[in-house]
Parts: sequence; structure tokens; C-alpha cells
Amino acid sequence: MMIKVHGMALATCTARVLLCLAEKGLDYELVPVDVAAGEHKQQPYLSLNPFGQIPAFEDGNVKLFESRAISKYLANKHKDIGTDLLRSGCLEESSIVETWMEVEAHHFNAPMRKLIHQLILNPLVGSVPDEKIIETELEKLGKVFDVYEQKLSVTKYLAGDFYSMADLYRIPYLFYFMKTPKAIVVTDRPRVLAWWIDISSRPATIEVSEGMTLHKFL
Amino acid sequence: MMIKVHGMALATCTARVLLCLAEKGLDYELVPVDVAAGEHKQQPYLSLNPFGQIPAFEDGNVKLFESRAISKYLANKHKDIGTDLLRSGCLEESSIVETWMEVEAHHFNAPMRKLIHQLILNPLVGSVPDEKIIETELEKLGKVFDVYEQKLSVTKYLAGDFYSMADLYRIPYLFYFMKTPKAIVVTDRPRVLAWWIDISSRPATIEVSEGMTLHKFL
Repeated sequence: MMIKVHGMALATCTARVLLCLAEKGLDYELVPVDVAAGEHKQQPYLSLNPFGQIPAFEDGNVKLFESRAISKYLANKHKDIGTDLLRSGCLEESSIVETWMEVEAHHFNAPMRKLIHQLILNPLVGSVPDEKIIETELEKLGKVFDVYEQKLSVTKYLAGDFYSMADLYRIPYLFYFMKTPKAIVVTDRPRVLAWWIDISSRPATIEVSEGMTLHKFL
Repeated sequence: MMIKVHGMALATCTARVLLCLAEKGLDYELVPVDVAAGEHKQQPYLSLNPFGQIPAFEDGNVKLFESRAISKYLANKHKDIGTDLLRSGCLEESSIVETWMEVEAHHFNAPMRKLIHQLILNPLVGSVPDEKIIETELEKLGKVFDVYEQKLSVTKYLAGDFYSMADLYRIPYLFYFMKTPKAIVVTDRPRVLAWWIDISSRPATIEVSEGMTLHKFL
């Protein structure tokens, strides 16, 4: 039975799962969710994701939500095909991948989400971006990128000298962030910039980012 | 070589790791970090955790930070002793555990952190709690607990009929939250309350919570 991803190709959390599928070379059906009509806040969608967010996922009888949990499921189930995203064959390596995945969740995600909201979503709906929020969150993000800059002076990717889920998780937000005037937070840091150029030019990233068109509506 | 946890027993992220160690029955050395003196923001501590937060972790040559990554390392390395926290023997079960771990990171953690900050940390340093923040975050937390209440009507614990890391991750914040007047968000929901009574009375939880004394300074 074909893997089903319920979501939208232009949405960051859906894109995270699609990146994983592309790195593994897996076929899937993208089932569109009409977010504008509130389909994600009603049954039957709520039975797939009780929090009413996209994406949701089905692989036969396995039904999951939360993009990062779905991504890990795919990487674990298909560990022997495509890119080895979790390094599960070596506990020490996989634990360092996990560490930098947690850094994404607890340091990178919140400021980046608020910045994308202000810089891309607000203009789309005709709201004025809040300059104070932008300034505060850019400062937080800059401090996170300072740590990345230092780590990327030691290893080629965040978790080591191998591309992993820790890098992949950051692509969707960064893809949109790099379209904004604040991309200087990345371009000012040479190792973070080189890392971004590397991971954004992977075939899987190029394939998935073709569907990421949110900024084109601006 | 003895496992070393650098942190403070009363701090929530340190407690998360200690809960994991207690569920596994592992010996460890808790190396105190003098947070009041800013030890975590200086070398040599920064070489253990570049974000300058507690805890940090050493197990021989393995050095990790981020409490959830450390917890997973311990659960994976010692999967055959003590409580089976990740269900790694079954991909479907382990993926559901991962899903509810992601729910902790992306739905539960932010409002709970802000509430603990307002209700416990602010009074400790003589600041007045911000009632508007409390109201906003309590409303968010209530909606998260509505989903838990529904899930706990189907399974005994969050990820299934077994105690797992998905439950454990929530204990440190909930332990302090239950000491506040806002505990009604839990006690008003019968299945969430029964779940809390269950997980808070586990021997490992009782052992670790003896060191969680932040509220006693109020």
C-alpha cells in the first residue's frame, strides 16, 4: 500500500517529511488538506492528528503525526536504502545526531518560526511585521548560529562529517528564511553559509523545494 | 568509568536525565554546576554544552548535552535493563512513543516552561508573575491536556498501555506545576489526573523528586 502524506508541499512541516522520503527515494501520495477551508480542524482529519495540524501520515496500518516522528519512522524503517539519516548502526554517532536534532527543537525552531511568521506569513495576509519581535528573535537566532559556526569549523555537518537528519530538519524554515532580507544572519557566517549551500543543493532538497512556493505569493 | 551528569538535581532538565537513570537502576555521579556563579556560561563547562545550559553528560568518551538526547542514549544503550522506555523492539510502538515525545517538545514544553517561569521562578527572585502570560499559557496548556484526556481514555499511558519516555519527559515540569494553584488544569481532567498519580508514584519518580526542591524556597 502506498505511503500517504496528508499536507501541503509548501508547508514547512510537510516539507520535512517529503525531504526524508526524497532522501530515501520512496514513492508516496501527497493527499492535499484544504487548510484554507479549515479541513485540518475537523473530522475526519482530527482522527489522523488530534492537534489539527499538518502533516499526518499513513503507511498501511501505521498512522502517525508530528513531522519529526514521521521522519524518524521512515529513516528507521528504510535504514538500508538511500541516505543513512540517523546513523543507527553506531550508538555514539546516532546520539550525536539526536543531540543536534534536539538543538533544532529547543534552540532553532522557536525563533525561526516567529521570524517566518513575521517576515513571510504576516505580509501574505496583509499584516505589518512586528519589528520588535523580528529584532528579538534575530538576536536569539544569531546566538544559535554562532554555536553552529563553531561546530561547523570542526565537522562538515552539524552532527559530524556526514549529512544527517540533524541537518535535514532545518532545511524547510531555512529555505524560506534565505528568501528574506534577514538572510544576512546566515550569509555573514562563512561556515554556516557553506553548510547551507551544501545542504540546499542536494538533489532531494532541490526536488522538494520546487513545491515550496509560499514566498512566491508575496 | 562512572556516568557523570553535570547539573542540579532540582533543575527540570537535569531531573529528566536522573529519572531515566533511576528507571534503569544505573549508578552515576551528579557533578554540581554552580549556576548562581555563572559556571555554566564559562569554560570549561561550555566545552561540554556550547549553549551554556545544564545538564551535560559524560559516559567514558561519550559526551552529550540536551536532556532528551542524553535520555535516549541511556535508554538505547541499556535497553535490556530496567524499564523499556523506547520500545525499540517494535517499530510501530517506538514510532508512537516518538510521536508523543515530539508532542512534548512542540505542544507541552513551551506553555509549561512559561508557566513555571511565572509561577515559581519569578516569585523566587522577587518578580511579580505576569497574569496575562499566565492566562494565555494556561489556555494553551488546557487545549493540550484536552488531547491527552482523550488519548488517555483509549490507552493507559500517552503512547500506549505501557509507561514510556513519552510519559517520563513530562514529569519534571509537572512535578513543580502540581505544587501551584494552577494544578486545577490537571485535577479537573480525571484521566490526566489518574495518569499523573500513576507516573508520579513510580519508585524512580519518588527517588528523583526528593531532590526537586525548588518550590520549597518559595
